[in-house]
Amino acid sequence: MATAAIVIIGNEILSGKFVDENSGFLIRRLRELGCDLGRVVVIPDVPNVIAAEVAACSAQFDHVFTTGGVGPTHDDLTMPAIAQAFGVSLYRHPTLEGILRRRMGAACNDAALRMAEIPDGAELWWDGEVRYPLIVMKNVAIFPGVPALLRLKFEAVAHRYAGTPVRTERLWTERTEPEIADLLTEAAGQWPTVAIGSYPRFELDPPKVLITLEGRDEDALEACVEFVSAGISG
Amino acid sequence: MATAAIVIIGNEILSGKFVDENSGFLIRRLRELGCDLGRVVVIPDVPNVIAAEVAACSAQFDHVFTTGGVGPTHDDLTMPAIAQAFGVSLYRHPTLEGILRRRMGAACNDAALRMAEIPDGAELWWDGEVRYPLIVMKNVAIFPGVPALLRLKFEAVAHRYAGTPVRTERLWTERTEPEIADLLTEAAGQWPTVAIGSYPRFELDPPKVLITLEGRDEDALEACVEFVSAGISG
Repeated sequence: MATAAIVIIGNEILSGKFVDENSGFLIRRLRELGCDLGRVVVIPDVPNVIAAEVAACSAQFDHVFTTGGVGPTHDDLTMPAIAQAFGVSLYRHPTLEGILRRRMGAACNDAALRMAEIPDGAELWWDGEVRYPLIVMKNVAIFPGVPALLRLKFEAVAHRYAGTPVRTERLWTERTEPEIADLLTEAAGQWPTVAIGSYPRFELDPPKVLITLEGRDEDALEACVEFVSAGISG
Repeated sequence: MATAAIVIIGNEILSGKFVDENSGFLIRRLRELGCDLGRVVVIPDVPNVIAAEVAACSAQFDHVFTTGGVGPTHDDLTMPAIAQAFGVSLYRHPTLEGILRRRMGAACNDAALRMAEIPDGAELWWDGEVRYPLIVMKNVAIFPGVPALLRLKFEAVAHRYAGTPVRTERLWTERTEPEIADLLTEAAGQWPTVAIGSYPRFELDPPKVLITLEGRDEDALEACVEFVSAGISG
């Protein structure tokens, strides 16, 4: 199955000025699509930090999604940093320049044209007949930080990331985690394709433990659920 | 000023089964305390991944906060991974073992006693007269993933992370980002101690740009705010 990482770029998230809505949205959509998310990271608007993180994630995951830092102001440093990550230069793409000039007219100054500068080798994805394409450098899709824009642009390309969704089963028990720990360890060993999670909910009265069992192998999942279910009620 | 990183450990966040509440809480509290957050990362319950991330963050930041993976079940792997990060072994701490045995009585089995196993060299912090201490390995404070517990344990030790809070000023303008980009670049160059952010709010009618100016140098901040304020209204 395809794996993915999300790189949230922005001082405004780390400083608490804005609450990050984008990772929550992407986490949910990638789950629905069946793309396995392995990492979410929030980093500041610092070119070397962005370049290092993007290079590492690009090498380690099938897909990388960046958000933020793609506007016309001094704190928008994602494009040059991604170029740096891949050791290429930025250039002003004529198609993007044309779009900006037509849209903005006389207001299209040098700052605005920074938005037409992309890493050498990047692709333009026009899925969904958007007015402005998504910029994708190798396996790194570069999204804006504005949540409404990100959602719009993500949905246009979501079909490219579709795989087989994971099935999740949930079991609840009033037994404590120490009581069921050996049972879960045994189940995890016996069905390695099933991911088992155990989450105590002390705030419930009486306290309960939520056990989640997840996987794409239906037979293994069903056998594992049956085993754990019998074990916790036994 | 002290810097910090947050490491959220848990498949349940990456898979969207639970929404991460802990990073939002810690981001807000660190900001209030005046501790500069440089990184938030969400990683799976995989020992090598946890160990690598904790080692990197510990070397790069003054303080590291981990959340999650500290219970008694098979998916609780934070303690051994942090031991691995620092090249030490785990051992069962007699004080912690005593607390667990007294609290749990006959229910205190081997699984429960995993919660008494900590990295060699870790400290126990008893601030706030909590029933169970916070485990801290070098500059890495190890918090539970359950949000209510994390908040309780963080507040008990928050005083240790207090510094000088950053002051934030906000300016709004109906001018567009391309129009004000040069002004902001000039201000950022002239007052390097002031962090300037620019955030378009296209959803407002008419659209506006929020400019944030932040710093600990009051004089520089005031001069910079005055400069930008005059520039956007000029």
